[in-house]
Amino acid sequence: MRAVDIIMDKRAGKELDPGQIKFLIDGFVSGEIPNYQISAWAMAVFFNGMTAVETAALTEAMLASGSVIDFAGMTGPFVDKHSTGGVGDKTSLILAPLAASIGIKVPMMSGRALGHTGGTLDKLESMPGYNTSLDAEKFRELIARNGFAMTGQTKEIVPADRLLYALRDVTGTVESIPLITASILSKKKAEGTEGLVLDVKFGSGAFMKDAAKAEELARSLVETGKALGLKTIALLTGMDEPLGNMVGNFLEVEESLDCLEGKGPEDLMEVTFELAARMAVLGGKAANSIEGRALCEKAIAGGKPRELFLKNIDDQGGNSAEVIKMRGNFRSPICTELYAKQSGIIGHIDAWKTGHAAVTLGVGRNRTEDDVCPTAGVQFYAKRGAKINKGDPVMKVWAATEEGLKAALPGLQDAIGIIDEASAEKTLSPNKLILKEIG
Amino acid sequence: MRAVDIIMDKRAGKELDPGQIKFLIDGFVSGEIPNYQISAWAMAVFFNGMTAVETAALTEAMLASGSVIDFAGMTGPFVDKHSTGGVGDKTSLILAPLAASIGIKVPMMSGRALGHTGGTLDKLESMPGYNTSLDAEKFRELIARNGFAMTGQTKEIVPADRLLYALRDVTGTVESIPLITASILSKKKAEGTEGLVLDVKFGSGAFMKDAAKAEELARSLVETGKALGLKTIALLTGMDEPLGNMVGNFLEVEESLDCLEGKGPEDLMEVTFELAARMAVLGGKAANSIEGRALCEKAIAGGKPRELFLKNIDDQGGNSAEVIKMRGNFRSPICTELYAKQSGIIGHIDAWKTGHAAVTLGVGRNRTEDDVCPTAGVQFYAKRGAKINKGDPVMKVWAATEEGLKAALPGLQDAIGIIDEASAEKTLSPNKLILKEIG
Repeated sequence: MRAVDIIMDKRAGKELDPGQIKFLIDGFVSGEIPNYQISAWAMAVFFNGMTAVETAALTEAMLASGSVIDFAGMTGPFVDKHSTGGVGDKTSLILAPLAASIGIKVPMMSGRALGHTGGTLDKLESMPGYNTSLDAEKFRELIARNGFAMTGQTKEIVPADRLLYALRDVTGTVESIPLITASILSKKKAEGTEGLVLDVKFGSGAFMKDAAKAEELARSLVETGKALGLKTIALLTGMDEPLGNMVGNFLEVEESLDCLEGKGPEDLMEVTFELAARMAVLGGKAANSIEGRALCEKAIAGGKPRELFLKNIDDQGGNSAEVIKMRGNFRSPICTELYAKQSGIIGHIDAWKTGHAAVTLGVGRNRTEDDVCPTAGVQFYAKRGAKINKGDPVMKVWAATEEGLKAALPGLQDAIGIIDEASAEKTLSPNKLILKEIG
Repeated sequence: MRAVDIIMDKRAGKELDPGQIKFLIDGFVSGEIPNYQISAWAMAVFFNGMTAVETAALTEAMLASGSVIDFAGMTGPFVDKHSTGGVGDKTSLILAPLAASIGIKVPMMSGRALGHTGGTLDKLESMPGYNTSLDAEKFRELIARNGFAMTGQTKEIVPADRLLYALRDVTGTVESIPLITASILSKKKAEGTEGLVLDVKFGSGAFMKDAAKAEELARSLVETGKALGLKTIALLTGMDEPLGNMVGNFLEVEESLDCLEGKGPEDLMEVTFELAARMAVLGGKAANSIEGRALCEKAIAGGKPRELFLKNIDDQGGNSAEVIKMRGNFRSPICTELYAKQSGIIGHIDAWKTGHAAVTLGVGRNRTEDDVCPTAGVQFYAKRGAKINKGDPVMKVWAATEEGLKAALPGLQDAIGIIDEASAEKTLSPNKLILKEIG
């Protein structure tokens, strides 16, 4: 078997057999197949796609490059959630203790902020002492104890994905649905989950701007997930506007606590409950998503998820009492407010512009090696549909540096679209966040 | 400027500007842009193509990576021919002295056999002592003296092409018309020619099997050549059957001598005269190809091209008197004849099968580092349309090794298609070798 022949088969639009795919991935990880053949193959995949059988074979080949978390001897059900990433999306922090509170085990392995999208690990680490580098033993132990744990991927988890993603990132081959599918599912299989709820976002702040493309990814994830023996449901959710009122690392921990206390903003709670409902269904705790949602709403009202969230902070090296004391005052001293430039109705808050400004503030990063600031971010005082007068404050902004603040403000001001009341009545549709369920 | 953005522009089907293309090629040659980005870009070019402006910019960028032969102070016209490669194609050996004999300067830089196609340098080197590694000074000197010289490319000629071709060869990106165009034209520009006749072959023994694809390449070559200030004409010529009766290195030198003596086989002379006629036109020696052909036929009859051919052998390190003595007897002792398996008419001699069998005999090579045998090859006793009786000898075969002979025979026998006389009358069309002129 020669790599060049496999590249040419894919270039010609042929379906590769699992042996050919395994040959490529094994050779890539061992260093026998050079990067320049893998990048040419990835570009051919970008153009010619992959069948579900090929995508499943790629996922299996990548999975086999590393180790898998073993929950033998522990009672499930094991269900996780994965989001394709957005702005202000802190649902993981709420969902993990919420699902745990209804008897689901949540082995949550998350990522970091990159570009305009936030990262769960960065949010968690904004709590002093919180450790997101658990080893497999500690990860299992905490899941057994609290029903969930939240960590980053260890070096042993799908090394093929780390290598392949790094190569795709510099060769223009990131935006390929089968390659994205295999990257997501290999890591989720490796964390040992049995069920997976996928939050596939579309809109300006999403990885996929276009709903049709997001749906294509969702279908690929569900179809391939099932082929791999994962129980899988995907929700197509809107990401044209930031989720919730807070965008920032510690700011989002605080807003997660608000949600766990039943005081979360409507849009964020809507997405959280709909995802949680599907976790309940996949975990066998509810017959359907309506029952699942009711169960989860009741759980929040009962306070158990909040208790588990705080317990997890202490168990992962943080101090929950301190976190509660820090609420409302762990903020960068470099801050300002922005004001409405005209009276009217907020027609839109652009997620992409907000996300990019947030990177400038220090919330996120453009390069994986950059640090983030725990106390930077944005708090929106008003969201879509709110009536506003010229000169009213619309948001508060905290930055890591003075230059960052100055550089971010024009983009943030620009992110707020104010329209007059008459046209708002005519054009402003209700904010439908859950577009479709695929599963 | 970042390579990944250029790759993504090409992936999206955008036209790259000359600055972007130069950035890629310069960075590739200097080692600043890694192979894995260039191969991903080449695959994106394979799928999305290039405009004539982009192809010209690529050619210029590649040309700028090395040096150009300078004919300052020498009187032209300088006209060369380039063939996309075939089986039994020894037209270069005949054309160079023929064009020189009518006052054209031919700065001919050729390549080696690879796969089923033969190589001019290997044919020339079958003459003991013949040197195909002339330096630029010697190349100029011999062109000034005899009107032509024949050499391989020096290391200084388009190093970008050597690097890029080696990468394309192992990444499934050879078969891209703009990349082929830039590869051919950058080398031809570098040898200092002003006019270029292109022999773009189609058929089983050609690089492009399909006439439509070959025409696409011909148009790309002519259009890009003109954009670069080269006078360019392309002929689309058939390569379903070997050209002439001889396939082999010294065998083809002998057949070239036959042609220069006016005794060449009809198919080979047809292609040679039609190409020579266009060289005469581009060099300003004839008003049109009909006049050009008449001029070249007259030249062959006058004996000057043969004289120049022999003089060149002596000037490039060979011994023309020895070559003449070796005619008919410089043959491998490992040989046999093949016979007709049925009576009828030769309907077809397959060029691809012949070319592949010839590699096995030792005429060519599958890997660039392999040696070739000067005295191996095939002589056809009869070609397409000839009447034949069962048991008649149809070809003589010489091999470098006994194993090579044994391995080549089934393919050679299979290359000869014999049909019955009735169906030959109905189906056998005249062998139309020159399909079209583009220019």
